[in-house]
Amino acid sequence: MKILRSNKAYLNCVERSEVQKLWRQKLMENGFFHNPPAEVVPVQASLGRVTARSVYAKQSVPHYNGAAMDGIAVWAQDTFGAQETDPKCLTLLPPAKTFGSGCCYMVDTGDVLPDGTNAVVMIEDVHIRGNMAEIIAAAAPWQHVRIIGEDIVANEMVIPEHHEIAPVDIAALLAAGIEDVEVVQRPKVTIIPTGDELVASRGELKPGTILDVNSHMLAAAIQEWRGEAVRSAIVKDDRQAIKQAILASLQGNDMVIINAGTSAGRDDYTVDVLSELGEVFVHGVAIKPGKPVVMAVCQGKPVIGLPGYPVAAMLTAELFVRDILFARQKLPRPEAATVEASLVKQVPSTVGVEEYIRVSLGNVQGKMVAAPLSRGAGLISSLTKAQGSISIAAISSGLSAGTAVPVVLLRKGKPANTLLAVGSHDLALELLGVFLRRRMENVSLSCANVGSMGGIMAIRNNEAHLAGVHLLEADTGLYNTPYVEKFLPDGNWRLIHLAMRLQGLMVMPGNPKVITGLSDLTRDDVSFINRQRGSGTRMLLDYQLRKLGIRPEQIAGYEKEVGTHMAVAASVLAGAADAGLGVQAAAQALGLDFIPVSPEQYDLILNFTGEDERLYQIMDVLLSEEFRSEVESLGGYDLSNAGKLIAAGPNLRLNECGTRGE
Amino acid sequence: MKILRSNKAYLNCVERSEVQKLWRQKLMENGFFHNPPAEVVPVQASLGRVTARSVYAKQSVPHYNGAAMDGIAVWAQDTFGAQETDPKCLTLLPPAKTFGSGCCYMVDTGDVLPDGTNAVVMIEDVHIRGNMAEIIAAAAPWQHVRIIGEDIVANEMVIPEHHEIAPVDIAALLAAGIEDVEVVQRPKVTIIPTGDELVASRGELKPGTILDVNSHMLAAAIQEWRGEAVRSAIVKDDRQAIKQAILASLQGNDMVIINAGTSAGRDDYTVDVLSELGEVFVHGVAIKPGKPVVMAVCQGKPVIGLPGYPVAAMLTAELFVRDILFARQKLPRPEAATVEASLVKQVPSTVGVEEYIRVSLGNVQGKMVAAPLSRGAGLISSLTKAQGSISIAAISSGLSAGTAVPVVLLRKGKPANTLLAVGSHDLALELLGVFLRRRMENVSLSCANVGSMGGIMAIRNNEAHLAGVHLLEADTGLYNTPYVEKFLPDGNWRLIHLAMRLQGLMVMPGNPKVITGLSDLTRDDVSFINRQRGSGTRMLLDYQLRKLGIRPEQIAGYEKEVGTHMAVAASVLAGAADAGLGVQAAAQALGLDFIPVSPEQYDLILNFTGEDERLYQIMDVLLSEEFRSEVESLGGYDLSNAGKLIAAGPNLRLNECGTRGE
Repeated sequence: MKILRSNKAYLNCVERSEVQKLWRQKLMENGFFHNPPAEVVPVQASLGRVTARSVYAKQSVPHYNGAAMDGIAVWAQDTFGAQETDPKCLTLLPPAKTFGSGCCYMVDTGDVLPDGTNAVVMIEDVHIRGNMAEIIAAAAPWQHVRIIGEDIVANEMVIPEHHEIAPVDIAALLAAGIEDVEVVQRPKVTIIPTGDELVASRGELKPGTILDVNSHMLAAAIQEWRGEAVRSAIVKDDRQAIKQAILASLQGNDMVIINAGTSAGRDDYTVDVLSELGEVFVHGVAIKPGKPVVMAVCQGKPVIGLPGYPVAAMLTAELFVRDILFARQKLPRPEAATVEASLVKQVPSTVGVEEYIRVSLGNVQGKMVAAPLSRGAGLISSLTKAQGSISIAAISSGLSAGTAVPVVLLRKGKPANTLLAVGSHDLALELLGVFLRRRMENVSLSCANVGSMGGIMAIRNNEAHLAGVHLLEADTGLYNTPYVEKFLPDGNWRLIHLAMRLQGLMVMPGNPKVITGLSDLTRDDVSFINRQRGSGTRMLLDYQLRKLGIRPEQIAGYEKEVGTHMAVAASVLAGAADAGLGVQAAAQALGLDFIPVSPEQYDLILNFTGEDERLYQIMDVLLSEEFRSEVESLGGYDLSNAGKLIAAGPNLRLNECGTRGE
Repeated sequence: MKILRSNKAYLNCVERSEVQKLWRQKLMENGFFHNPPAEVVPVQASLGRVTARSVYAKQSVPHYNGAAMDGIAVWAQDTFGAQETDPKCLTLLPPAKTFGSGCCYMVDTGDVLPDGTNAVVMIEDVHIRGNMAEIIAAAAPWQHVRIIGEDIVANEMVIPEHHEIAPVDIAALLAAGIEDVEVVQRPKVTIIPTGDELVASRGELKPGTILDVNSHMLAAAIQEWRGEAVRSAIVKDDRQAIKQAILASLQGNDMVIINAGTSAGRDDYTVDVLSELGEVFVHGVAIKPGKPVVMAVCQGKPVIGLPGYPVAAMLTAELFVRDILFARQKLPRPEAATVEASLVKQVPSTVGVEEYIRVSLGNVQGKMVAAPLSRGAGLISSLTKAQGSISIAAISSGLSAGTAVPVVLLRKGKPANTLLAVGSHDLALELLGVFLRRRMENVSLSCANVGSMGGIMAIRNNEAHLAGVHLLEADTGLYNTPYVEKFLPDGNWRLIHLAMRLQGLMVMPGNPKVITGLSDLTRDDVSFINRQRGSGTRMLLDYQLRKLGIRPEQIAGYEKEVGTHMAVAASVLAGAADAGLGVQAAAQALGLDFIPVSPEQYDLILNFTGEDERLYQIMDVLLSEEFRSEVESLGGYDLSNAGKLIAAGPNLRLNECGTRGE
């Protein structure tokens, strides 16, 4: 990425908190937060808006003196001395009649209190005989009367300035006679996507170009932050074009975002153009990802250049755009909910930059754990998988496994209901997640694909709820059992069978290289793509190669590793390799040809305490016909024994080793 | 309220949690939560929507093998053995040329990897000499290459079923080639306002009628809960009309809300009509407010009748509408944020019903306290003032002062920044709140008007941040100081002068009864409206009456108490009384005539620990010209000594008794 080249100096690469302070201060000096423009909207359409000034009642609530009970309206003084044994008798008049001493009127709740009365006697305490009412207890003046302004008094403040309007406020405003309300305008933010390589639609996409997705992501974020986003057309890497786009965007908008600075020289254009148009005061922030941020004020308005990689663009928008939009709208800064979690693995970090790392979160055996996701700034999938984010201070060289860290939550809902699947990858796991979501509210499954051995280690450290495993012991030909018995001497785990599945070589449709089995991998004209060390597939390959007497060095591409069956399939489809070992389902998903090598046993280690509802739901799914047939339709699966208990941890062996599903 | 008449039996008056369970179960049986209808929306417009089913990638990301660095693309095997002292030389070709062994190409980040290359060497590690490139270190195959599908593999799941779409998900969907996404439809909810007394607009409002505000409040709530609300026209209390309205609303909607059942017989209509149209299974819930709830399923759809008083309507909507709307949309149930707080006063409760009480919240001297608001189900103002809600179990007869209770937060933002003003009411306090909000983010002022003595007691118990006081000691003619010294022997309080203000009699414009002073209150044709016991105004009245030798019994209306100056003014304006004692500002606000009685000293007790920023901000406001002139413009105020320190608590007397403002 050219703007990150080590030989290129930034104007000043400052600490994040300093940058935020400077940014706020510059915007304050330029009046960004002071008296933001207001607009008038009907009260009915004001939900979530912020009052621009205090609102005062135009009428009292209630606006008349009314009966607060069903009964008779009286002049209280007429009832003084009334008792059960010595009732007072009053003449019952229709309300139209003028009131006279010794008279009363029948009223219902909400009725206007007739002139000359000042209290209501409940109907239960009155005996009506013809046109006479017998009162058996004295009424206090004003009893059971709802007087004018009891709730809201005319000219009183109903809602203060800079208050976010909730449904109940709409009721209060309308009741107080207010029909329109002056609210703070939503800030208008233009996003300018820049880059020669960017295209706007799938139709224009070809190798070497990329789809502009950032401008849509940023527009949605601004919408979520209550602003109004405008996306401009894509601008090429051309100084004049960028200048024109910024100038045009400054008209009628409150803020401009330029995205990005990822191709050669563009960053310079942006900085140069912004220096011409106003003052650039930040160029480079000491964070990772997200270093190449440019901040300026042009024509008194904030202009910010965000980096091009999606993860970096989103993070810097959260750090430098969100809060100022809230502050301008006089909305409370959204409180980031945090949970404390234990890191499942070591996270190294570069000293001198503050690092932000996205994580999956789950409550395993009563302990909240955070599993760091891949850190690549370009990995959009890490954004969608992330449930939380941790930051590592600039002075730290990293955090060790087991460190308790505060995790900022990125999604709504309780992270406690996330199931962490760490281990071998299988397409059936994703389907298991879908089926669980249908059964349990607010449950999600987060998969970290680290191979079977990684899964066993995660279970051992109570860092995962489940692990997919398919580990073959070469000597015995047994799957999984020897490994769990060796590596999991303690704990509450259960080893449950999921499926028999077919592993084989995936090759281009039509098998142009005429590959018939593993022996063909040694051919000079055949390139291979491998799975990572510790994965069951890698172990199966090595086992089969040993049987055939083939050494790794004989295979071109043996050293190129990817992390999932689908990634192997994609590499083959893209021509990056001629063959790769994986499950039939992956080949079928991408329309590749498949040469069977070996069936294998794929099991799940489930790590739950005794009565965890999630355990029973997983068992239920495994035993359901619907799930079984959906997985089998992926190709190469046999689920006839799915859900069968194979082994269990020592804590479970003696007592309730079974599950409700059996 | 007729439907709450003690002699009327409910079908069954059940516990709230039982009702919620039954309601959910009935709706489940009727398929309300199962496979809700879906609709297709463009991905760009899908923010906050929920996927109806899992979404799979249409293309891989990246969709081509590309350079991940600026440098030269090589066949890695050609570089094996390269060292600083023994570089490998490759021929640099333009990318169009066919690749041959010993050749390489210049590539920029993002460029397509030329055919036949499988690695990128960083530009820093290459010496270019003419058309030759000198490589000084061996390249590993696939180094610095971003391979197809590294981020997302075609046909892989991008977003699972029933997932709320965030900005980052929009990026992932678009990157994966998805342009439209199937999302769960927003539930359509019709609200039918019913009642002979209801009018739709202010123009139609007259004594005995009330504005329909509930339907707007409920519509806003449903919008907040992601539904689509439709408000039907107001329906009269007529059985046929109600039946027609329900039948019409069942067409094309997913749920019907009928509001309300507050006038005689209407409740019966609703229940009878619903029994005709379907099954009524709840009629009456053991909660307060909110008992008269009717629940039914008609034509397989939920129909609910909510009570008419706004506080009850909102509470029952929160209890019985919100969660089922979220569940239908497969959204996680919103987690109610709670804080623990200490109750500032005793809260009695009826055994047999679960009571919900709205409260103000504030952090006083490091302790979170909750001040219960007026409980009237009709008090809309209590809804707008409430920051939290507590519930008291049906088996409890109430909670004593000081009880630690969990408070469910009703507003966004930290409650810790709420300033609790408990004490005497003054219009200047509301302005103080407005001025503070302009200076400090996320600060609000919540006023509980309990009179001066109530304010002193609240400070004593650390239940308030500030208290307005105007207490005259009859013997000495001194204001406030004798009381704070007597009742506040401990603590960090400061007594700060706010204003001299004029108290007097408020009378109808033109003074039709020709009232010239307090002596006229004893006249037979003059009625009075009083302030509550413990208020400074009541004490001033009693002091002045004693001086004049007038006994309370001589004054008609002495026993009718209201809680604020504005409420006194409103009562006079409404003709409920001929005169009331209060500040000139209140008379001026409602256009009443004012007969001065006495000036008085109005001070603030401020209760903050040493360096609390809020203390300094309050002092700053009091000393500001802007605040002083705005208060003085209300009428009858003199703020020339505002901000002057009069006395301080013993903890402050010895050391830093002053404030930054002095």
